[in-house]
Formats: sequence, C-alpha cells, structure tokens
Amino acid sequence: MTETMSGYELHEIASIIGAQIKGDAACRVFAINTIQDAGSGEIAFLSNPKYQGYLTSTKASALILAPQLADQFSGNALVMDNPYLGFAKVAQLLDTTPPIATGIHPMAVVADSADVAQSANIAAGAIIGEGVCIGENVQIGANCVVGQGSRIGNDSRIYPSVSIYHNVTIGERAIIHSGSVIGSDGFGFANEAGNWVKIPQLGGVVIGSDFECGANCTIDRGAIRDTVIGDDVKLDNMCHLAHNVEFGDHSAMAAYSGVAGSSKVGEYCTISGRVTILGHIELADGVHVTAGSQVSKSLDKGAYSSGSPLMSNRDWKRNVARLRQLDEMAKSIKQLEKQIAQLKSENSDE
Amino acid sequence: MTETMSGYELHEIASIIGAQIKGDAACRVFAINTIQDAGSGEIAFLSNPKYQGYLTSTKASALILAPQLADQFSGNALVMDNPYLGFAKVAQLLDTTPPIATGIHPMAVVADSADVAQSANIAAGAIIGEGVCIGENVQIGANCVVGQGSRIGNDSRIYPSVSIYHNVTIGERAIIHSGSVIGSDGFGFANEAGNWVKIPQLGGVVIGSDFECGANCTIDRGAIRDTVIGDDVKLDNMCHLAHNVEFGDHSAMAAYSGVAGSSKVGEYCTISGRVTILGHIELADGVHVTAGSQVSKSLDKGAYSSGSPLMSNRDWKRNVARLRQLDEMAKSIKQLEKQIAQLKSENSDE
Amino acid sequence: MTETMSGYELHEIASIIGAQIKGDAACRVFAINTIQDAGSGEIAFLSNPKYQGYLTSTKASALILAPQLADQFSGNALVMDNPYLGFAKVAQLLDTTPPIATGIHPMAVVADSADVAQSANIAAGAIIGEGVCIGENVQIGANCVVGQGSRIGNDSRIYPSVSIYHNVTIGERAIIHSGSVIGSDGFGFANEAGNWVKIPQLGGVVIGSDFECGANCTIDRGAIRDTVIGDDVKLDNMCHLAHNVEFGDHSAMAAYSGVAGSSKVGEYCTISGRVTILGHIELADGVHVTAGSQVSKSLDKGAYSSGSPLMSNRDWKRNVARLRQLDEMAKSIKQLEKQIAQLKSENSDE
Repeated sequence: MTETMSGYELHEIASIIGAQIKGDAACRVFAINTIQDAGSGEIAFLSNPKYQGYLTSTKASALILAPQLADQFSGNALVMDNPYLGFAKVAQLLDTTPPIATGIHPMAVVADSADVAQSANIAAGAIIGEGVCIGENVQIGANCVVGQGSRIGNDSRIYPSVSIYHNVTIGERAIIHSGSVIGSDGFGFANEAGNWVKIPQLGGVVIGSDFECGANCTIDRGAIRDTVIGDDVKLDNMCHLAHNVEFGDHSAMAAYSGVAGSSKVGEYCTISGRVTILGHIELADGVHVTAGSQVSKSLDKGAYSSGSPLMSNRDWKRNVARLRQLDEMAKSIKQLEKQIAQLKSENSDE
Repeated sequence: MTETMSGYELHEIASIIGAQIKGDAACRVFAINTIQDAGSGEIAFLSNPKYQGYLTSTKASALILAPQLADQFSGNALVMDNPYLGFAKVAQLLDTTPPIATGIHPMAVVADSADVAQSANIAAGAIIGEGVCIGENVQIGANCVVGQGSRIGNDSRIYPSVSIYHNVTIGERAIIHSGSVIGSDGFGFANEAGNWVKIPQLGGVVIGSDFECGANCTIDRGAIRDTVIGDDVKLDNMCHLAHNVEFGDHSAMAAYSGVAGSSKVGEYCTISGRVTILGHIELADGVHVTAGSQVSKSLDKGAYSSGSPLMSNRDWKRNVARLRQLDEMAKSIKQLEKQIAQLKSENSDE
Repeated sequence: MTETMSGYELHEIASIIGAQIKGDAACRVFAINTIQDAGSGEIAFLSNPKYQGYLTSTKASALILAPQLADQFSGNALVMDNPYLGFAKVAQLLDTTPPIATGIHPMAVVADSADVAQSANIAAGAIIGEGVCIGENVQIGANCVVGQGSRIGNDSRIYPSVSIYHNVTIGERAIIHSGSVIGSDGFGFANEAGNWVKIPQLGGVVIGSDFECGANCTIDRGAIRDTVIGDDVKLDNMCHLAHNVEFGDHSAMAAYSGVAGSSKVGEYCTISGRVTILGHIELADGVHVTAGSQVSKSLDKGAYSSGSPLMSNRDWKRNVARLRQLDEMAKSIKQLEKQIAQLKSENSDE
C-alpha cells in the first residue's frame, strides 16, 4: 500500500467515522490494508465473518469491527455497528488516488467562450468546447472532450478519455471513468420503404449530484426531451442508458446492465449485472433485479429474477432440448390428470 | 428546445415531408417538441395512440398526424399516413445538433501523405495517419484517430474519440459515435501445447454508405479477407461485429448485440438488444430476433426468440431448480402415459 | 492482400513452422490468403474439412495442410499435423500490420519523471504521466493515456485511445486494443441510510506477460489488494474484469464476458462469449463455459452451460409461459405418480 504522508490518530478517525475507541487513542495509522495483510501503521476492518479467524493473528495497528466481536480482539479497535461503512470512510481519509489533473495544461484546448472556474484543472489533450461551464475544483482528465454548452458541476472528477457531447449537464461531485460517453444520439429511426430515416436527437442529458459512472458506459441524449439521471446514482462499467430514460435517486446498476428507451427506474433500486430493462416500462422505487434478468414489464417494489441455472454441459444438452416441448409437456400433464380422474371414477363405480 | 433561427412555414414542410396541410399554410414553426410540451412556434407529432388525449389540449402551433385523427384536431395540421416518418424528417429540418468540427484545427495532426478534401473539417486532437483519404464535408471529432490508409466517405460525421485502425473503408454519410473502434484485431489464436499463438489479422473492414454506429461499438478487421458491412446499416451502442462478419444492407441491431466470427446477417434484418449471434452461421434476409436471444444456428426468414421470463425472485427460485430436472420430468410423463394406457386396457379387459 | 516486400522461400517457412516440404522448396511466397482466393505468390492453408473441395482448384503457390491430405494436393505443400498453427506462424511472418508509433512524436506529452526506453515509440496525442516506466520497443498509440507510476513491459503494443490509470503494471509483449480501460475504480460503495458512500479503490492492476486484450475492455483496479492477471491471457472485445479478480495463466475469454469482484478463474480456462461469472467464486484450472452462461458457483474442471434454446417467436411464446409453472408441473407429476401407484395397487387388490 502506498502510505499517506502523516496519517491519522485513532481518536481523529473515531470521531470522523463515528466509532468507539478501544485501546490506544493516540495510535497513528498511515494506510489501510486487509486484515490478513495489514502490518504496523496500517488499519484494517472485519465485516465478513469468514475472516474472523484473523482476529488473533492480524498484525494491523488497529481494526474496525462490530461490537459483538470487540471482546475477541486484544489490539486497538474502532467499534461500530457497520464496519464496512467505517472502512469506506477510512479509505476516503487515507485515499492515495493521485489527482486527475493539476492546473490547466498548456496542451489542453479550451474554447474562448468556455467558463472555467479558477480552481478547475484540465489535463493535456482535453478539448473544452464553446460555452462549456466547468465548476470549482473540477478535474478533467487527459484527452477528454466536452461538447458545446455542457456544464460540469463543482468538485467533479472526469477521468481520461471521457466524451461528453453538447448540452449535457452534470451535477456536483460526479466521478466519471475513462471511455464513458455521455450525450451520444439515441437510437432513433423511422422507416421509409425499407430505408432508415434518422431522427436527430434534440434533447440533452441532465445528471444530478454525486453521480458515479464506471468505465466505457454510454448514456444517450433524449430524442426531444432530456434523458434524466437523479442524485447519488451509481453505474458500474459498460452500463447503458438509452434516450429519455429516467433513472431515480440513489439507484445503482452493476456492469453490463442497460435500460432501453423511455423506461423509468425508481429511487433506491438495485440492478445487478447484465440486466436488460426493456423500453417504455417503469420500475417502482425499491426494485431489486438479480443478475442476468430481462425485465419486460413494469414492476412494483420487490425482488425479481429470470434466467436459467448452470449445469454440466452434458446435463444442459439433455435438459435444454425439453424447453421446446414445455407447452406439450404441460398439456400432457393435464391430459393425464383427466385420464386418472376418469379411471378413478370408473374404479369407484365398479 | 433550442430554436433554429428562421424556422419553416407549414407549406414548406408539407412539401418536404409529403403531407397535406390543414389550416394555416403560412404558419411558421421554429422547433420540434412533444405534443404535451409544445408551445407557440413549435411543431409536434402524434404517432402513439396513447397520446391522443393531448389532441384537444396541446399548445403546439402545428401537429403532424394521421388522416383518421385529422377531424379530431382543430389546429394547424400536416396530415400523412406515417406521422412518425414525418417527425423524423421535420427533426432533420429543425436539427439543432452543432457541427462536430469546423475547419482544420491547428491542434489536429494530419500526416503529409493524407488526402483531405478542402471542405473537410478536423477537430483538435484528431490524428490522421499516412495515406488516409478524407472526403468532402467530412467532420472528424476531437481526439479521433484514423489509421494508415483508411478512407472516410463524403459527408461522414465521426464524433470525438473514435478509433479507426488502418485499411478501413467507410462509405458516404456515415455517422459514428464516440468511443467506437473500427478495425481492431479479430480474436484469433492457434494453440500450441497450451500456449496461445497470435494470428495477425490481415484483412480490413469495408463499410457501405449511410452507416450509423452508436457509442462504444467494436468492429473487428478480418483475419484474411475483410469484415463487410452493407449500406444503410444501423448499430446501437456497444454492438460488436467480429472478424469476417458480413452484415447486410438495411439491417439494424440494438444495444449490446454482437455477431461472432464469420457469420452472415442478411438484408432487412432487425436484431433487438443483447442478442448473441454465434459464429459461422447465416441469417437470411428479413430475420427478426427478439431481445436477449442467443442464435446458435442458421435461420430462415421469420421471428425468433430465446430466453426465460421474469418472475418474483421467490417464484424464480422455486421454478429454476426444476430446469435441472426437465429431462427427467419429460421421461416421467412418458412413463405415466404408458402406465395409464396399461391401466385403461386392464380396466377394459375386465 | 498487401504484400510483404521480399517474401520467404518455402524451406525457410518450413523450418520456422516445423513442416515437411512437398514440392519446390525454393518457391517464394509474399502474402497469405484463403484457399479459395489465393493466387500466385500467395500461401494458403487447409484446416477446416469443408474447404477440402478447393484442393484441386486453388491457385495458391503453396498450401499448409495435414499429412492425410497431402496426397490429394499436387502443388507445393507444407505438411504438418496442425495446419491452423502453421497458418498462425506464417501470418506472423507475413504480417502487414503497420507500426502503431515510430519514435516519440512532438505532439506526445511525456512527463519529465517518466522513464522511457530509448527504443520506445509514442504517437501524437499520447499522454505519459509522472513516474511511468515504458520498456524497450514499446509502441504507444495516438491519444493513449498512461497514469502516474504505471509500467509497460518491453515489446508491448498499445493501440490508440487506450486509458491506463495509475499504478498499473503490464508485462512484456502485451497487445491492448483501442478503447480499453485498465485500472478504473472497482464498483465499491457502502450504504449509509440510503446514501452510497464511495470506497476509494486503492489497489492496482498487475498483468503478466503476453497479455492481449480486445477493444473497449475494462479491467478495474483492486479495492485494497491488486487485480491480478496471469501470463498468456487473451481477452476478446468488451470483456470486463472487476476489482480483485484473479485470472489464470493461458486462460481466454470471448467477447462481452465478465468476471465479478474477487472471483478467481484458473489456468487454461476457456470462457466463451457473453458469459457472466458472479462474484466471490472460483473456477478450477481447465474449466470451459459455453456462450451466454451465468456461473453462480465455484466449478471443478469440466464443461458447463446455461441458457435456453432458440425457437420461432410463436413457439417461444407458447413455451416460455410454462417456465412460470415448472414447479407446479413437477409437483403434478409427483401427484400423478402417486395416484397411478394407488390405482395399480387397487387394481391388483381386486
């Protein structure tokens, strides 16, 4: 682990993460590590019970752990109900991620009409278009492109090689990872005698605050109205939001998941990886969808799934062919039930 | 909506989109909007019957609608059989999408041997390789890369951060969205005692006219011969065409769909999202595949599907386990049928 | 086919690829082509029996083929057990792929503290960060970005527009295709009263030698420890490896396949396209997974599958609804079996 320069004493950390101190409040830690690898000067956490065995062997200078385990650990501890949350906050304190950009690089290209905050940072090769507005402390990575009239809120961090089209509005504290594309045309065509006629996509994209989006995502602009993403939305790598999607506050979606045109995802939804949400449907607040599912209709709050189970290739070959006979099988069962009922009644008639 | 400067009078639009005017032929519209949001100076359309209720309340200065609804609307109307097509054409007229590039930016890098048309436009940070040929009115976005010997046809628009490898030929009027990669190596390896031996991919990519490809697509070059894409092909975001795929004229494919090596997709095919077309197979003209399907064999014209339905997670857990028993279930049904036939025959023997 | 300048005589090729010569050892070939298209000066191969018919008609100057077919071909032949491997090696000899970069372009940006080998090549628009180490003969493509402290091994080729974050280590002879992102943050958040709290991703990525990765892949950095990729690993386009994945030597994965957080893929595994490997599981060495499967549990060596078969849309609609009744169907079968057993016993009691 790279060490942060000066570290923190446990009492400082305790007050920031809201934990009780057990042991030496003046113990200073400089880096975070796993419970099994941590050494002197490092802090670790215990959240998953399968690592409980390391409680006696860990070399960490301090541990974040839950009250019920505090008695089993003889070292310095920060005790709190949700050690994983504690870990997140300590990782933020001891974050070693280097800045994406520092100052405005002479090899960045910034349009004269762009409004760039004094404290904003723009790396080499970034191209900032006409009328763009870049907020305070924003970091724009190398070779990013921001199109005409787009706005990036204060404290946002845009990693290298992100493409943001024109008329895209991104809120404060966004983190956008490399290769993501925001504001590309929605997939819209009319058909005229077999030929596709393009429908220019005239809407924009509006994204709330605290957005994070992984690498190589795509978020299309709206056809007429905007594509709209709420606050505190988190997308993993290679997610896709189509034109005019609305994606609610505090909802999150794992890798390869996508939402087709004009669908609405509610607030506090958790969409696992490789989920397909078809177009023109609506997911209520609090919907959870498991990995690999295809959502073909609107959903009330609850947990939903589709997909088939993994088998040995040999068993799968035997079983999968039967899927083509499923309706026939169901009808055979009904027939059998009728025949048995008749046999029974005949027998009882005798 | 951003307004276009001077707008169009309805009689001008009518003649361009092939509609009948009802009402004031001199009414001028400046922008397109939805039927529910449109106001003065804006034109809207009605295609989906679910918006029919807005016919009486819309504030639009004009509506594009079908003949059978014309009587229900008292305002200015452009009447035509396919209002959605009319909308597409009006959106093209009133398109507010800014140019991708204007002139050749001093921070573009153009090889001496490149043949760039006088009217071509190349944005900052774009890198144009040796022997590249760029046609009339082409727009190349910021930070695009075009490799040695590639050709881009007249009037094509390449959005920022597109990577085009060497020996790729793109026809006229292409639109390629950010992050797409054209001409990357196909996935080809021989195996020698457990080690992978790379097969250099020596073919190119040849794309017809009127191609549009969404953001973050990948189209691999051929192993020996070329990967070939016809005219009027439309790909949504994150589509993938593997080496030596042939993709027919007027076919379209939605997001996340991919075609594996050496497969052929016919003309006028419509492939929905997240479809996997396995390698070395052939889809006839006019094939339609629904979302999430995996195509494992060649197909005649028709509509095809695979995949399982969404359920509550609880129902899914109950049902999905049965998929492992499907073959056994089918055999049990056959057994039951035999046993019942025997019981019946015994009963009738009595 | 583009020709290489001077070509090779068959005896040279034979000794390089380990084949027996039949015919004129001094015959010189300049390019590789398919058996059906090859002409004078070109060498082809026959591996797939379906092309056997071309043995008598091919115009190739030489053919690579298997011993059992050598008698059926009257021309010059290179005879070996694995002609496909021979083809791979000849394609490497006659490779016409142009260099990605030649020298260090004046429009590249290289940090003062970067350690760039004399023989390394860096194209225009590439941005090389502080403390980066670039090995001998490395080629870095146009508009690539390499973050602080990352290392790229000798003879590696990085195609244009690749984004490599900080503290990423890539071994020798890597090939990374355009649009790929290596070292982006893993998808890690704790939840505090409905709000997501980011977990900074403090690990790195360590990749062995002879890595090849297709276009638009994403490989996330580890949360605390590193994401680790072995030697001779091959990834197709749009693959995704999440944080802390371990991916074993000589394993390969086709397009759109992804591995979720902390999972381990063994050595010599072959993962087909669109496979989802869920998190925190382990695949043994030598596992094969077929296209479209979702792997939800750890696997021993063997071949595995999931997914449903393609049908006409009409049949699919009939059959797929039955999946919701599967558990019920299975229970009905059990009921029927009981009832029949009872009927039988009644009958035999009579």
